[in-house]
Amino acid sequence: MAPQDNGRECLLGIDAGGTKIATAAVSTRGEILEQSELQTPAHDGDKMVKTFRELVANETSRCRGKGLDIKAVGIAAAGYISRKDGVLIESPNIAWRMVPLKMIAEEASGLPSFLDNDANGAAAGERFAGIAKGVDDFVYITLGTGVGGGVYTDGNLLRGNRGVAGELGHIIIDPNGPLCGCGRRGCLEALASGTAMGRKGAELAKDNPDTILLEMAGGDPDMITGKLVTAAAEQGDETALRTIKTWSTYLAEGIVDFIHIFDPKIVVLGGGVSESGHLFIDQVRDSVIELGIRVLVEGIPILLSKLRNEAGVIGAAALAWEGISKDH
Amino acid sequence: MAPQDNGRECLLGIDAGGTKIATAAVSTRGEILEQSELQTPAHDGDKMVKTFRELVANETSRCRGKGLDIKAVGIAAAGYISRKDGVLIESPNIAWRMVPLKMIAEEASGLPSFLDNDANGAAAGERFAGIAKGVDDFVYITLGTGVGGGVYTDGNLLRGNRGVAGELGHIIIDPNGPLCGCGRRGCLEALASGTAMGRKGAELAKDNPDTILLEMAGGDPDMITGKLVTAAAEQGDETALRTIKTWSTYLAEGIVDFIHIFDPKIVVLGGGVSESGHLFIDQVRDSVIELGIRVLVEGIPILLSKLRNEAGVIGAAALAWEGISKDH
Repeated sequence: MAPQDNGRECLLGIDAGGTKIATAAVSTRGEILEQSELQTPAHDGDKMVKTFRELVANETSRCRGKGLDIKAVGIAAAGYISRKDGVLIESPNIAWRMVPLKMIAEEASGLPSFLDNDANGAAAGERFAGIAKGVDDFVYITLGTGVGGGVYTDGNLLRGNRGVAGELGHIIIDPNGPLCGCGRRGCLEALASGTAMGRKGAELAKDNPDTILLEMAGGDPDMITGKLVTAAAEQGDETALRTIKTWSTYLAEGIVDFIHIFDPKIVVLGGGVSESGHLFIDQVRDSVIELGIRVLVEGIPILLSKLRNEAGVIGAAALAWEGISKDH
Repeated sequence: MAPQDNGRECLLGIDAGGTKIATAAVSTRGEILEQSELQTPAHDGDKMVKTFRELVANETSRCRGKGLDIKAVGIAAAGYISRKDGVLIESPNIAWRMVPLKMIAEEASGLPSFLDNDANGAAAGERFAGIAKGVDDFVYITLGTGVGGGVYTDGNLLRGNRGVAGELGHIIIDPNGPLCGCGRRGCLEALASGTAMGRKGAELAKDNPDTILLEMAGGDPDMITGKLVTAAAEQGDETALRTIKTWSTYLAEGIVDFIHIFDPKIVVLGGGVSESGHLFIDQVRDSVIELGIRVLVEGIPILLSKLRNEAGVIGAAALAWEGISKDH
């Protein structure tokens, strides 16, 4: 049974990233009531654990002091996670190995706590308080340094047998494509991440020395990033616009595969790159119709997340809400 | 609540294919108790409906006459299906359009009836009485004229928002690959179906005139089918073996994508081509390890279905069993 929302009941969401830990007390309606942020000693695993433990204890009592009735703690962390065990197995950016974050949070807060990876958290956040509110079947794709995602089917987050399902960034889009961080070629991540946008921009800039992209990158094409590409595109730069067009087509190919596989009601694009979504969303939508099986892809809205910076903590709070709604 | 298995309780499974309708009374333990088969006037939609109605009525009373207690009817049919409405919307091989098969079966039998597409039925059959018995998370891929599939996540068949999820044959494996029946290039179906195996065999045979494949095809490479390729490979023909090796790699690429997306406990290969599975299963397993992200693909068994000819009716019976187990 889901607890009732009496206006003061809330969830503590903790977004444990590579450089900071953000927390928020979030109402059961998805509004942020309290927020805090802490820089983290990401290179020192032991210190990180201590920092995390204190943060949970402090934020819990601080929120209680303000009259908030925290029902549960949700933790979204980057990395491989065993949700069942509540353990962060390994993180790409933090010196954490095999850390029982769920148990630590439960001890520090005295509350039921729930741990999942950041992409699943973000998907949960979209369903809790974002553009997928109340939608039972949707695919969420996060576009940032890499490409990740989370999938809801019939109201449940797809987790798989070991809890590592939803590696949406690592389907192959083009076997002859660029090398991916995973060691393979042409993964969606290698073609449709922010990093990939920068790489494509650099490639095109080499043949188009008049692009403002080069100027923005101090003359060195290898310094061109996804952010620079979107900034140049905002100014109407031809090379940047062409970069985004190609990039959008790759993204659309991935979306088509996911629609064919999952038959979602909507597709949601989140992550840092989605904040420049106005530059590519029309192209992505057109390409999905063009590249997909018409009867399957037509009429499936492809939408941009609106949660922005708050996606992390709201997603973490959503994990807590789902946890107590389903487990108790 | 699932009904109790008292030894005589059973399900009537109906496999409505393009050239025949097969039926079987299947025990709740998955054993076939009674069977029948009927050639169908596939080109005459109205006659098909009449035939179907009579068949359901006759088989129901015949089984009752033998003391079998049929609890429900399951229908697996090739084509686009609206499961919720119980309607076959369109079938590729039968002149059926918008046929309310569920309602017809319920009227003819007086029993709760359940309709789904054949690939979902086959997946359900594997979980009911096949190699995926009791497995909550698995991917089932059917390899025949085309490539289809069904996916179980957390014990539930993935259906999606409109019920058309699981189009596993239509993810793009190689954007420069051969044309697919769906009008696009390089779908898994265009590279890893039985048809694709024949096409690849024809391609290689043209450069290898000493292959027995040519002889078997009456000298015309365009008459080479998947069946001929497996038959030639059984005899150790080099060209046929090479064909199967390439084909296996494409199949493995699809399997890798599905493992990355779904994190299944096992992957099951079914359909006609899987009956020659001993010719390619080792290659497929090796390629999955080689092509996938090691930590994700390692230790996931890739298994061949053992249901063979009976997969259709057992799958249909499984749909009936799932229907009454979940809905009542």
